[in-house]
Amino acid sequence: MSNDKLPSRKDNFAEWYNQLVIKAELADYAPVRGCMVVRPYGWALWENIKEALDLRFKDSGHVNAAFPLFIPMSFMEKEKEHVQGFSPELAVVTHGGGQKLEEPLIVRPTSETVIGHMYSKWINSYRDLPVLINQWGSVVRWEMRTKLFLRTTEFYWQEGHTAHATHEEAQEETLRMLDVYEDFAITEAAVPVLKGRKSDSEKFAGALRSYTIEAMMGDKKALQSGTSHNLGQNFAQAFDIMYLDKNNERQYCWTTSWGLSTRFIGAIIMTHGDDQGLILPPRLAPYQVVIVPIYRNDEEKSVVSPVVDQIKRQLKDASIRVKVDDREEVTPGFKFNDWEMRGVPLRIEVGPKDVSKNSVAFARRDMPGKTGKSFVSQENLIVRVNSSLEEIQKTLLKKATSFRDQNIYEMTQSDNLNEVSLESWAFGWWCGREECETNIKSETKATNRCIPLNQSGQRGECFFCGKPATEKSYFARAY
Amino acid sequence: MSNDKLPSRKDNFAEWYNQLVIKAELADYAPVRGCMVVRPYGWALWENIKEALDLRFKDSGHVNAAFPLFIPMSFMEKEKEHVQGFSPELAVVTHGGGQKLEEPLIVRPTSETVIGHMYSKWINSYRDLPVLINQWGSVVRWEMRTKLFLRTTEFYWQEGHTAHATHEEAQEETLRMLDVYEDFAITEAAVPVLKGRKSDSEKFAGALRSYTIEAMMGDKKALQSGTSHNLGQNFAQAFDIMYLDKNNERQYCWTTSWGLSTRFIGAIIMTHGDDQGLILPPRLAPYQVVIVPIYRNDEEKSVVSPVVDQIKRQLKDASIRVKVDDREEVTPGFKFNDWEMRGVPLRIEVGPKDVSKNSVAFARRDMPGKTGKSFVSQENLIVRVNSSLEEIQKTLLKKATSFRDQNIYEMTQSDNLNEVSLESWAFGWWCGREECETNIKSETKATNRCIPLNQSGQRGECFFCGKPATEKSYFARAY
Repeated sequence: MSNDKLPSRKDNFAEWYNQLVIKAELADYAPVRGCMVVRPYGWALWENIKEALDLRFKDSGHVNAAFPLFIPMSFMEKEKEHVQGFSPELAVVTHGGGQKLEEPLIVRPTSETVIGHMYSKWINSYRDLPVLINQWGSVVRWEMRTKLFLRTTEFYWQEGHTAHATHEEAQEETLRMLDVYEDFAITEAAVPVLKGRKSDSEKFAGALRSYTIEAMMGDKKALQSGTSHNLGQNFAQAFDIMYLDKNNERQYCWTTSWGLSTRFIGAIIMTHGDDQGLILPPRLAPYQVVIVPIYRNDEEKSVVSPVVDQIKRQLKDASIRVKVDDREEVTPGFKFNDWEMRGVPLRIEVGPKDVSKNSVAFARRDMPGKTGKSFVSQENLIVRVNSSLEEIQKTLLKKATSFRDQNIYEMTQSDNLNEVSLESWAFGWWCGREECETNIKSETKATNRCIPLNQSGQRGECFFCGKPATEKSYFARAY
Repeated sequence: MSNDKLPSRKDNFAEWYNQLVIKAELADYAPVRGCMVVRPYGWALWENIKEALDLRFKDSGHVNAAFPLFIPMSFMEKEKEHVQGFSPELAVVTHGGGQKLEEPLIVRPTSETVIGHMYSKWINSYRDLPVLINQWGSVVRWEMRTKLFLRTTEFYWQEGHTAHATHEEAQEETLRMLDVYEDFAITEAAVPVLKGRKSDSEKFAGALRSYTIEAMMGDKKALQSGTSHNLGQNFAQAFDIMYLDKNNERQYCWTTSWGLSTRFIGAIIMTHGDDQGLILPPRLAPYQVVIVPIYRNDEEKSVVSPVVDQIKRQLKDASIRVKVDDREEVTPGFKFNDWEMRGVPLRIEVGPKDVSKNSVAFARRDMPGKTGKSFVSQENLIVRVNSSLEEIQKTLLKKATSFRDQNIYEMTQSDNLNEVSLESWAFGWWCGREECETNIKSETKATNRCIPLNQSGQRGECFFCGKPATEKSYFARAY
C-alpha cells in the first residue's frame, strides 16, 4: 500500500488505469508474459460478481459443470469459421509426461468444441432438451498487447453452453442471457450498458448471430462487457449433436453460448473511478464499509476501540461487509487516502468526540470532501448504513448513465465521424455493409459497437456512406 | 439414466465404482486421454464441498486469489526436490500465438513456485506477515493409469499457500489446516479420516514435513484425502521470499501449502456407497430430498400434484435442497431405483392415500427396504425432514467409523503383513527406516499411510523388521 498520487484521468487515462490496478492491489503482472495474478482484493470483487451472476443463472434453470482444459487440435478444425477465428491465438501443448504427444493439444480458448463433443454423447431424445450448462473457469488466448483485466493471455470467465430443439428456443435463450447480463451490469455494478446485436464482422467465430452489452468508459471509449451467441446449427453439425424428435426422426440441435469475464472488472474501474482511485459499487464491493478509529493516545484508544468493535459486530451481524483498519504504523489521514484509492463506498470514522456524542462520521466515497461527510447517531446505525449504501449505488448508476447519455452524439450525414468518435459515441443510421464498416474502421478507428434490438422501423441514409439504411447503430473507439 | 444393475461391490469393487460414476452422471471421460468431465450432478457435489471448505478457510483468516495456469520451466528447477518429484508428470506448452516459445511453459502441476515468486515481490516487512492465500482451480499431472476422480490428468482442487515469520507459526498453520480437513471430512462428509504425518518417502516434493488425512474405502484400501505441508524455508530460499524483521534484518520466510481435490468425491463414493449405488451425506448432497408423486391416472394426479407442489415450496423455503421427479415417461419404481443409484438421502412419496391421510411416506437411502420406510404426518414436515437428514448423517458416520475400526488390525511381530494388508489396515510399532518401508512395499504392496500425531511415548520393536521403534504407524494398500 502506498499513498502516492495517481496520474489524473484527464492527463493520462491509460496510465491512471495501469497504476490504479497495481496500487489498489487488484491484480499484478505474472512472470509469464501477458498473464495476470488476481490478488485477493480483486478476487473478492470477482467472487461477488460470480455470486450475483451464478444466482441469476441458476434461477433461470442452468447448472454448472466442468469440462477439460485441453482440447485436441483436430476438434478446432471441425468448425471452419471457428478455427479461422481462434488459430492465431492458440497455446499448444506438444509434450506430456516426458513424451511428445501424437496429437498436439490446445489449451481451451473457449469450449464450444469440446462441450459440443460431450453433448453429442449425452443428448439422445427431445426429452433430454434443453441442456443448460454453465462453466466457471479460465481460458487462454495468446495476446500480443496485454492490459490487466482488459486483455490478458489467461483470463477468468464463465461460459454458458446450451442445446435446444428449435431455432426459436435457441434464440430465446440467447436473448434471455443477454438480458441477464444487462440486468447484472445495471443492478449490481451500476454500469449502464447498452445492449444490441453485433455486426457480422464483429460476431463470434462460428456464430449465426452475436449479441453484446457495451459500456462507456471514463475516457469515452467503449468496452464490450459480455456477449451472447446464437450458434445456429453450426456446432451441432460439426459435432453431431442430434436428438430424436417426437416422430422418431433425428434432428440437429440448435446451440448457444454466452460469456462474461474478468474484463468486467475493468468496466467497473473505468466507469466509476476518479482521480483518487477506485469507486466500487456497494453491491459488489469486497468491503462495503471501512471503519477508521481516530485517537491520539492510549487513553483515547481505550475509549474508541470498544465502540469500534461493537459497531463492527453490528455490521457483520447485518451481513454488511466491513473492515476495521486498526493499523498502528500509519495515520488516519493515510488510511483515508488508502481506502479511497481502494474504492470502499462508505467510511465510518470513530473518535473520542464521536463516542461522547454517541455519533459517528460517515464519509461517502462517491462524494469527495465535505459534501459527502455527515455525522450520524449510533442509534439505528444499520438502517443508516444500508440506506447510505443504497444511495451510493443509485448515485453511481445515475452519474454513469448521465455521463453516457451526454456523450452519445446523434449523427447526421454532414458530421465527421473522425471528430465525433474522438469525443463521444456516434449513433445513427447505418447501411450495415461490411465494406462501409471496414472504411469506417480504417479512417476513424471507430468500430460498430452494437445495433440496438428495438428499431423504429423507419428508414434513413447511412451517416457515413449515404446508402440506404434500415437500422440505427452505435460506433465508437473501443478497448 | 438407466435402471441397469451395478456389479456388486463384493464381486468387483473397481467395476462397481467405474460404472457408478458414469451411471450416476457424476463424471464422464473427456476426449483427451486421462481427463474427465465433471457433470452437473458431480459438480453440484463439488460446489457443496467447496462451500463447506471455503467457509472454514475464511473463518481462519484466509483469502482467495488466482495465480496463472502457466509456469516458466526454469521456475520448476529452482527447488531441487520439487522438480525431481514433478518433472515426469509435466504438460509442456511449446507454442503460443503461432510462434515457438523462447522458454517452454509448463501447465501448473501445483503452484508453490509461481506463488513463491509473487510472494517475494509482495512481502517486505514483518508487518506483511502472515500471508494466508488460497486458490480454487485445476492442475495438470500427466498420469498413465487414470480413474475418474481418483487419478486424472487434470483435476480440480484448492491449494493454500501461506508465508510466516517463524518456523513455529508455519508448523501451527500446517496443523491447523490438517485439523480443518479432518473436521470437514468428519462433519460434512461423514468420512471418518485418520490424520497423521507422512513418512519421509511419502512426503511432498520439497516439503520439510507432510501431513495427511487417510480414509478407508469400502474395499479396505486407503485413500489419501487431503494433505498439509510444512515447506520449511525450502521455497523461501529458492524464490527469495524474505522479510525485514523488527530489527531491520532480512530473514527468509517459512511457508506452508495444503490441498484437497475432487479426489475427495471418490472418498465419499467408496466410503458410503452400496450395491444399489451412491449414498450421499445429507450435508453435501446436491439434492437432500427427492419427491416422487404416485398416481395411476389423471384424477389421482390432480389430487397429488398440488400437495407435491406445496411440500416442495415448504422445503425450498426452509433451504432444504429438493427435487421433484415429475417425469411422465417412467414408473415410480424406476424413479426409486434411479434416485437410490444417485444417492439422494431421503425420498418422499406422495400418493392419493397419503393425501387423504394427510401423510407422506419417507424412505431413507441409508436403510434399504422396509426398515428405512415410515409414514409421517404432513404436520411439522420440515422438522421431520430435518431430523431425518441429521439422523442419516449421523448413521453414515457411525457405520463408516465402525467399519474402519473393525478393519484395523493391531500388529504383533508374528503377524504376516502380506496377509493382513489384504484384509485390513495394519497398525503397529514401526522403525521408520526408509529401507524397511521399501521392503514392506515390495513384499506386500502396502504403504505407510500415516504416523499419528499423538504417540504414547513408549517404545517397541518394528512389526516388520524387529528393529527398535518409537512410533506406531498405519500401513495399507492404497489408491
